[in-house]
Amino acid sequence: MKRSVGFLACVLLIAAGGLRAAEPEKPESIRIPGFTAASSDHQRGVEERMADLLDPAATARHFRVLTEEPHPAGSAENLKLAHYVRDQFAAAGLEGVTIHRYDVLLPWPRKVAVSMLEPVPMTASLAEDGTPVDKDSYAVGAGLTYLGMSASGDVTADVIYAHSGNPEDYDWLVKQGIDPRGKIAVVRYSNPYSYRGFKAWEAERRGVAALIIYSDPMDDGYRKGDVFPRGPWGPESHIQRGAITYDFIVPGDPLTPGWASTEGARRITQEEARSVPRILAVPMSWGDAKPILESLEGPVAPPSWQGALPITYHVGPGPAKLHVEVEMDGETRPIWVVEGRILGSEKPDETIILGNHRDAWVYGAVDPSSGTATLIEAARVLGTLARDGERPRRTLVFASWDAEEWHLTGSTEWGEQFAAELGKGAVAYLNVDSSTSGPNFGASAVASLNRTIVEVARDIIDPNSRGSLLEAWTKAAAAPGDDGDPSGPLVANDLGSGSDYTVFLNFLGVPVVDLSFDGPYGVYHSQYDDLYWMEHFGDPGYRYMTAMVEVWGRLGLRLANADVHGFDYRQYATTVQGFVDSLADVPGLRDELDLTAAGAVVGEWRREAEHLQQMIDRVLTTGNEPASETLSDLNTALLGVERELLLADGIPGRPWFKHSLYAPRYTYAAMSLPGVREAAEAKDWELARRQLEALVERLQAATAATRRAAALVPAP
Amino acid sequence: MKRSVGFLACVLLIAAGGLRAAEPEKPESIRIPGFTAASSDHQRGVEERMADLLDPAATARHFRVLTEEPHPAGSAENLKLAHYVRDQFAAAGLEGVTIHRYDVLLPWPRKVAVSMLEPVPMTASLAEDGTPVDKDSYAVGAGLTYLGMSASGDVTADVIYAHSGNPEDYDWLVKQGIDPRGKIAVVRYSNPYSYRGFKAWEAERRGVAALIIYSDPMDDGYRKGDVFPRGPWGPESHIQRGAITYDFIVPGDPLTPGWASTEGARRITQEEARSVPRILAVPMSWGDAKPILESLEGPVAPPSWQGALPITYHVGPGPAKLHVEVEMDGETRPIWVVEGRILGSEKPDETIILGNHRDAWVYGAVDPSSGTATLIEAARVLGTLARDGERPRRTLVFASWDAEEWHLTGSTEWGEQFAAELGKGAVAYLNVDSSTSGPNFGASAVASLNRTIVEVARDIIDPNSRGSLLEAWTKAAAAPGDDGDPSGPLVANDLGSGSDYTVFLNFLGVPVVDLSFDGPYGVYHSQYDDLYWMEHFGDPGYRYMTAMVEVWGRLGLRLANADVHGFDYRQYATTVQGFVDSLADVPGLRDELDLTAAGAVVGEWRREAEHLQQMIDRVLTTGNEPASETLSDLNTALLGVERELLLADGIPGRPWFKHSLYAPRYTYAAMSLPGVREAAEAKDWELARRQLEALVERLQAATAATRRAAALVPAP
Repeated sequence: MKRSVGFLACVLLIAAGGLRAAEPEKPESIRIPGFTAASSDHQRGVEERMADLLDPAATARHFRVLTEEPHPAGSAENLKLAHYVRDQFAAAGLEGVTIHRYDVLLPWPRKVAVSMLEPVPMTASLAEDGTPVDKDSYAVGAGLTYLGMSASGDVTADVIYAHSGNPEDYDWLVKQGIDPRGKIAVVRYSNPYSYRGFKAWEAERRGVAALIIYSDPMDDGYRKGDVFPRGPWGPESHIQRGAITYDFIVPGDPLTPGWASTEGARRITQEEARSVPRILAVPMSWGDAKPILESLEGPVAPPSWQGALPITYHVGPGPAKLHVEVEMDGETRPIWVVEGRILGSEKPDETIILGNHRDAWVYGAVDPSSGTATLIEAARVLGTLARDGERPRRTLVFASWDAEEWHLTGSTEWGEQFAAELGKGAVAYLNVDSSTSGPNFGASAVASLNRTIVEVARDIIDPNSRGSLLEAWTKAAAAPGDDGDPSGPLVANDLGSGSDYTVFLNFLGVPVVDLSFDGPYGVYHSQYDDLYWMEHFGDPGYRYMTAMVEVWGRLGLRLANADVHGFDYRQYATTVQGFVDSLADVPGLRDELDLTAAGAVVGEWRREAEHLQQMIDRVLTTGNEPASETLSDLNTALLGVERELLLADGIPGRPWFKHSLYAPRYTYAAMSLPGVREAAEAKDWELARRQLEALVERLQAATAATRRAAALVPAP
Repeated sequence: MKRSVGFLACVLLIAAGGLRAAEPEKPESIRIPGFTAASSDHQRGVEERMADLLDPAATARHFRVLTEEPHPAGSAENLKLAHYVRDQFAAAGLEGVTIHRYDVLLPWPRKVAVSMLEPVPMTASLAEDGTPVDKDSYAVGAGLTYLGMSASGDVTADVIYAHSGNPEDYDWLVKQGIDPRGKIAVVRYSNPYSYRGFKAWEAERRGVAALIIYSDPMDDGYRKGDVFPRGPWGPESHIQRGAITYDFIVPGDPLTPGWASTEGARRITQEEARSVPRILAVPMSWGDAKPILESLEGPVAPPSWQGALPITYHVGPGPAKLHVEVEMDGETRPIWVVEGRILGSEKPDETIILGNHRDAWVYGAVDPSSGTATLIEAARVLGTLARDGERPRRTLVFASWDAEEWHLTGSTEWGEQFAAELGKGAVAYLNVDSSTSGPNFGASAVASLNRTIVEVARDIIDPNSRGSLLEAWTKAAAAPGDDGDPSGPLVANDLGSGSDYTVFLNFLGVPVVDLSFDGPYGVYHSQYDDLYWMEHFGDPGYRYMTAMVEVWGRLGLRLANADVHGFDYRQYATTVQGFVDSLADVPGLRDELDLTAAGAVVGEWRREAEHLQQMIDRVLTTGNEPASETLSDLNTALLGVERELLLADGIPGRPWFKHSLYAPRYTYAAMSLPGVREAAEAKDWELARRQLEALVERLQAATAATRRAAALVPAP
């Protein structure tokens, strides 16, 4: 639709005398990685047909349904939306549309209460205020505000303010003679983001009796800009819900670590589960936190701990004394993953999975409904193309996950359930969680997919600038006065965790991509992340959700239709060289570990990848079009390279995390070469040496797989 | 008293078995600059006798009298305190104790009112709240809060927020399409400090209808630390009063620019006076400013403009609309300068002036009563010494200025009145304005006095660390991990304006020193700058005021008793070389001006000064003590060097400012080589060239004077 209007305008302008410059220039056509020139042209034709089908109005319709009611995991409303997604998949002509049920640990709260006993009695509202301009802000069905996987309990204790609740914050307090043990720690959400589960983990480790995490206006409120409903930032009563599951240890249902929570599956007890926190934790608005913080005495907090509340922050302990009660029901609840496919015409067993979660903390306009609307629309346009004769060569799988907000649950259970077929045939997993909170494009991926993503962005028009998305992306990413390097820094290759790609990358060794359009957004996981917010601030007109359908769809189709898988292992090896180089920054590592072998094997991989690429380019650019079947063995071999990077036993202490190049830190930040790095940071040099050996072995295996692939390139 | 206790403790410790390390080590004895070894030893003996006379209890007694009532310039209370100071001077045995009267323009307010008409009717309180712990905070006699020298008028207009009211702030607004003309500009006090009169000047220049200057908690309130009465920072209702006189054009009574406001003196009209603002201006607390600022719409202010109020700052214009009324009485009022002397035994016509102003905005505990108590105590201890036979060789003049807060008035009128004798005999002016707001020593001076100040600090014990004041000063001044260079960066040589040294330095060419002990201080010019504040935060125990008596007294005595004036012209020339070098940073200057001659003459001055110093050192260190009369011509010659740096016509547009090396910027910031620099910054290259010639001429004259002095050094 968007494109049709543009086309019409162009025709009219030409008719009016050729003022063609008013129409954005068509991006320069470059051969798509993995395609011959002819199939590249054909592919672009297919993609243009897809783009012509895009309809912001359709996206808006789905989005309004998805954000009509609060729909947390385990709720009847989220099951209703599973049915909605299923019906839309079916209407789009998808095949094998199915709802998978998993029964997972998903306790809901019976009671959450915080009151101040001293110095001034006060009961925290723990509720978000309605505003007349936005009917949804009177979210009567939203229920209690809480942190998923909090322990149950009843604590009365003095308060300390512990800044962001990071290890160095507690260290500072201890240095002042302030013992966090037995205290109630009030900490703020971190900006830049650090996973709230890490705050709980650290507090539990320090012997804190209960944890309160509040949203300081410095981080997502009035100090950032106008607050809802005047602007996109968080108002006084907004509360960031969320889970505190220790899924950096093992994600998915805590009771089935490493296998699927299907009917009759073995389950461990909650006490055995390593990802279940043992600490009480409650989220809070700054409106509730302010009287507590302003009652604190003790030392003045350091300048960097001072937030934007109109007080001087002290750290306590006391005289503020709180009574915190949390009662969770400890229940297991069913969750629902919706799946549908467009079967590939040539290689139906090779799959490209497009996934997004559906469960929200309240309405979840940005997170995740912008992604869910995008997913439904992507299924519609790609389904329509297939029905109209443009069936992809490989299979596109559409997945609507559930309970991502709890422990990345739906995707993890599904990935564990279908590990065998995914290990064999999954080409890539393309994740869109929050599709759109603004106009700034961002992508994370394994480095072998950098080039493919950049080339997709080159062929898409950015709705705001009307230049290419690649130009807008480059401009936004580049430092002022810097030109930026599109194939280098644009795609982030530091993959941490916090979304549904985790099982694919870390457990299955499937190449992953994570996509989003971002902007100013201060209502994350609050009830204000709603329709009003999106239509006024995030994506008025649904132009960026529609752009995401195009990005996602073109990327899926390119991976599905490539003559040869477009993985760029040269770039991958270069990126891994950077990982290896950065190891030398770990204090003491230079004296203890010899990185020569690791550097050498990465260099070897780089050379083999260069050779492979030359061979592939030759067959794709020279003479006759290669027949599909002559490339079949090569493609199978190419699929195997990423899998070779998995460690059979995972990384030390976290066997579920098998990828040798990536794992999330406990903060969800990315950690490269995690086995070596984590041991080295702990100064366990013996373990670090063994992990280095294991890493070198995996890199050698990837190198050998690359070499084998090169040998399978047919003569042109 | 302080010293006696120390001495007693020492004796007891030695008696107890020599635990001498518990007593701070006596600072290493170095020959005092300008003294022979013998006179240096004698001088230290005199200074130790002075130190033995110090009495924090006496300082406290004076301080409590001085801070008992609000005592602004022109008030009966401040006249009463003039009598108090006079009586203390007389009791201390000072000679020629006099009160000089000057009648100066000093309008008081009849009415100050600010109300918001839209969007929410509101009347600003323009008053400071009392707090039960501090009786003085119910300052019933404090009168209206206002800005001295505001115009009278009545304005109703839309509001803009213009950050700090600097030129670049208005430029930003204009770039957004926001016209400041006819608007009421709300601006915040600046941190670091910029003179409020500059904000008025800039607002007037921009056509702003009225100016409101408020205290943002980011700059002096809760974001800095605990607020009064819990801590030293400014509470919600505190108001920074102050004058907005354009005394950067010409200080002193605006009606007698360049001559004294004595009885029968010629007076110009207010309309003719260049230092009288034509704009309405009102000071405000953040408590009053908040509802105005939070009513503003228009663009969100840039991040650096966001203060610490719990709002997102917008710039307007409107919808906030204010009605501002100021009615000043336009009166001339008498002010009172108290003077007393300790006549020199050998050179009574050579004077060292110790000055401090007495007038306050309210109680003025820090500003200026800490300095006034210090002045009275200095007069007492030095008077006692003289009476006990240790009369200084040169005359010490003690001066209690008035109306410094208005236009540096009392000191300026006095300096203008006695210009002839000061030009001839003034050795140095030693200013203490706010003596003490904390424990951190600071000194500004002409560079020829750096060494003398540093050597004084070496001989004084810092009350907190019990090491030498020089060590404490060096430690506080040095960057972390840096050793600091005591003779270099410790004394600041960038002399701007904002206190009573101005007439001495800029009009008379007398070397000046400005001394203070500073600390966290957020109640400047508010009623909370009171006894409670000082005794709880600024200087509990009066240890630092007492230390300032010692610094000031030792410095005065060294200048009064030196065999040869201790001016270090080597350091002065080096500092001026830095000034010349920094000219090259003025954009475009390198292409337009040739700094060779200036560099050459400074080099020549440096060499002459080196030669002079060698000659002096030889005569002071070799063989017999030189007879005082043989050094008389040398000393007279040395006094003349600074005077040679005066420009007969002053700097362009500001003829009162005659010093070729310094003038205040309109912000009060220091500007070196002002004639050249100001013309170059305005890209008036023709004027800049002429000013450079004039500067070179003055430097040549100073060099010649230095050479003449060297020729007058007697043979050892």
